Amino acid sequence: MVEKKNSKIKKPKPLPPRGFQDYFGETVHLRNNVLKVITEIYENYGFDPLESSAIETVEALGKFLPDVDRPNQGIFAWEDTDEGWLSLRYDHTAPLARVYSQHRHSLPYPYRRYSVGPVWRNEKPGPGRFRQFYQCDADTVGSSTAISDAEMCIMLADILEAVGISSGGYIVRVNNRKVLNGVMEQIGLYDFDDTQKNFEVREVVLRSVDKFDRLGVSGVRSLLGKGRQDESGDFTKGALLSNLQIDQIMHFLSAKEDSSGDIFKTLKELVGTSILGQDGVDELKLIMDLANTSGNYERNIIVDPTVVRGLGYYTGPVFEAELTQKIYDPKGRPQEFGSVAGGGRYDNLVKRFTGQEVPATGVSIGVDRLIAAVNNLKSIKAKPEGPVVVTVMDKERTADYHLIVQELRDSGIKCELFVGNSRDLKKQLKYADQRKSPIAIIAGSQEFEKGIVQLKDLYLGAKISSEISTNKEWRDQPAQFEVLREKVVERVKALLSETKT
Amino acid sequence: MVEKKNSKIKKPKPLPPRGFQDYFGETVHLRNNVLKVITEIYENYGFDPLESSAIETVEALGKFLPDVDRPNQGIFAWEDTDEGWLSLRYDHTAPLARVYSQHRHSLPYPYRRYSVGPVWRNEKPGPGRFRQFYQCDADTVGSSTAISDAEMCIMLADILEAVGISSGGYIVRVNNRKVLNGVMEQIGLYDFDDTQKNFEVREVVLRSVDKFDRLGVSGVRSLLGKGRQDESGDFTKGALLSNLQIDQIMHFLSAKEDSSGDIFKTLKELVGTSILGQDGVDELKLIMDLANTSGNYERNIIVDPTVVRGLGYYTGPVFEAELTQKIYDPKGRPQEFGSVAGGGRYDNLVKRFTGQEVPATGVSIGVDRLIAAVNNLKSIKAKPEGPVVVTVMDKERTADYHLIVQELRDSGIKCELFVGNSRDLKKQLKYADQRKSPIAIIAGSQEFEKGIVQLKDLYLGAKISSEISTNKEWRDQPAQFEVLREKVVERVKALLSETKT
Repeated sequence: MVEKKNSKIKKPKPLPPRGFQDYFGETVHLRNNVLKVITEIYENYGFDPLESSAIETVEALGKFLPDVDRPNQGIFAWEDTDEGWLSLRYDHTAPLARVYSQHRHSLPYPYRRYSVGPVWRNEKPGPGRFRQFYQCDADTVGSSTAISDAEMCIMLADILEAVGISSGGYIVRVNNRKVLNGVMEQIGLYDFDDTQKNFEVREVVLRSVDKFDRLGVSGVRSLLGKGRQDESGDFTKGALLSNLQIDQIMHFLSAKEDSSGDIFKTLKELVGTSILGQDGVDELKLIMDLANTSGNYERNIIVDPTVVRGLGYYTGPVFEAELTQKIYDPKGRPQEFGSVAGGGRYDNLVKRFTGQEVPATGVSIGVDRLIAAVNNLKSIKAKPEGPVVVTVMDKERTADYHLIVQELRDSGIKCELFVGNSRDLKKQLKYADQRKSPIAIIAGSQEFEKGIVQLKDLYLGAKISSEISTNKEWRDQPAQFEVLREKVVERVKALLSETKT
Repeated sequence: MVEKKNSKIKKPKPLPPRGFQDYFGETVHLRNNVLKVITEIYENYGFDPLESSAIETVEALGKFLPDVDRPNQGIFAWEDTDEGWLSLRYDHTAPLARVYSQHRHSLPYPYRRYSVGPVWRNEKPGPGRFRQFYQCDADTVGSSTAISDAEMCIMLADILEAVGISSGGYIVRVNNRKVLNGVMEQIGLYDFDDTQKNFEVREVVLRSVDKFDRLGVSGVRSLLGKGRQDESGDFTKGALLSNLQIDQIMHFLSAKEDSSGDIFKTLKELVGTSILGQDGVDELKLIMDLANTSGNYERNIIVDPTVVRGLGYYTGPVFEAELTQKIYDPKGRPQEFGSVAGGGRYDNLVKRFTGQEVPATGVSIGVDRLIAAVNNLKSIKAKPEGPVVVTVMDKERTADYHLIVQELRDSGIKCELFVGNSRDLKKQLKYADQRKSPIAIIAGSQEFEKGIVQLKDLYLGAKISSEISTNKEWRDQPAQFEVLREKVVERVKALLSETKT
């Protein structure tokens, strides 16, 4: 179809696709400020930036293979004539595995990198659910020690406090897949030498444990046993474990309530002779030991056996951060943010490419949620001042106006000439208000001839300005005063430093 | 097709699609630093950030309409089940027109915004030609005065000098489409009341003028006349103008060589009675007047009638910046960068959505080219120091090592524990070198018991470290010395400030 060159053509709708949004001034500034805090801490911990291509081959992303019927399940994918199926990245971890595998002979080992940027998910859009959002990840590839996992938890706590969440206003819950596997080994559900055996049962167990927060002890017991009927009448088939098996798992899950130092003793007993399980408990203990020697994190980083984090690729320690602080929106309504970050160890992701197991662990911060919290807490400044606006009353004086603008900019003061068509001062001042300008500069030929200009303090005069109806009235406003033309920069500077204090 | 769960599955290739690349540490830092300089100037000029969605409907982007046979011509597009044809943005201007139209009732007017971020072009990849690259644009929507165009040119000059291009090392060439249209009106090729008349001939003229740099006077004369045969024998059909018509256009094009103030007089004569042309010359003069009163831009911002900037949507002033400074790569070879930025006035883009003409002008900086130039000039620092690396000689001392790391981080010093598996000190020091670490900290049980650690100055010791073969040798290296455990932070700080000076 060829676009017709007549004016009858249907006008396009000025809207982004559903599930996508635009970020304006203040929001961009706030996000940049929050990201600056996060990435400075990542760098402080020795992580290097990596920006991978936004587009990957579907083959490299791996997780979602498009089939003929539903090519776009979960991802934005399309078939390229030369390159085959391509897709926008859906996270920063899959691209990291590709980048690391590609450059493994030249990258430092371990490779510590962070990535910031949008990811895309082809999900059904809904209120507050977007198909493009920011993630900010840090990962260590090539380190098998739980010190690396501990580092992620401690760094996460550092970040949350640095963006303004109070100590005690969040919690990092840590678990280890190996411990649950150790418990399952003890009750005959896991065989180290044949991990495929009972794979499906273990998935049902994981799914059930994942619902602990919502369903509690009795709900999970049902799911581990014969199954559970929910309020709507839907029946979920259970794992069909014996009562003895269920008891052991429930014992494991309730270990989180054990606030004494004996939690590790309890866990050791539960994993019994399982080497994997013993190893997992030792790792958990190392993480907690380092957390406890790293500041006041004792009550913020805790062991919680109910943390699962999906069925996916995690192979060892897993953790997630939750905001527990009461946070209110501008109308005083309490806000729920839930999990704002999480991560864990995934030792098999690089193997897809290289055939060799490469240990890796990482954390991913859901920036948008964290920013929403920060925005309500007002802990990071989001509103940079607008520019000084030089209004235009006499078009013939363009060069004079422009010179004022130039002088202010050269002094590092954000400034602009009003370049709209209106010669109406009221409209120009309204524009300045809309731009959150601190000061408007006003001068006509009369002023220039007298070697003066008028400065208008817009913070002070915001209310009054809306009442101005003619160009003459402004001369009598209290928030407005005359300054010598050659003193403009000096006086604007003084006024700006006043309004800032 | 379902992925098989056996190990015989073909391993995916760890490569991005052709035409895409990854950016690592130093490159990301350099780009961030350059973008910081650019966006600070944009803000200084009163532009506000806007980050639009990366994905738009093809309908909103407008320029490229996919047809059935070649859905991806020039853009990355795919058909979404719910939203129809979607596409990645190919520039920041088309999304701006959409955003402005969508939010025009709440945005300030004029709307001054800047946008930074990747854009995607579905072009054939080749050496140095990428399908994802950064653009950094500033635009003013809603201002018809050439002051706004002047501002773009001056701001561009400010930016080039701020990133380290010397005054005199670049040139901003300015033209005005209205002037060429005025000349064409005088020779019967343009009719203000029927702009479709002679549309194709004018396109041939524009294409011919665009080749002035490469083909010179005689080449363009041929193209304006009967046509031209190039060296390969290919014949390009000409505009078939009369000699008189050609003379007038050539006269216009050679006006750039007129370095006296009379260029505007020459142009006024060439556009004669054309109101459009006269208007265009006045705008050019205003731009040059403001440039000349705005600093030492007299020789950097010049009128050049051969500037065309494509056939696209420009309707008034157009400009482009070129680096003329000799820039050499690290091997001393001279580098060509050509045009690094450009822009102009486009008054019809918003009209597609709203039906109303909204004047707009803007500049787009090709960040990747500019960064390549900056990188060779070394005018902006690209290499932040790597982290201090605490090596691990005794696994039992993890808590002690970790405490050193923690203390350094708390003092704002980038630091990390070596978390790889190797206990070989040589390998750990090699890792530190690869990370560009300034200092390695070395201690075994023996040191901890004595209450000391060893600091190794890696800048000084870089050469020597490669010769270490056993853990015992390092004790005698000259770039390495003993410090009291409690003085570690103090001594590292001192050493870092030394190496920085």
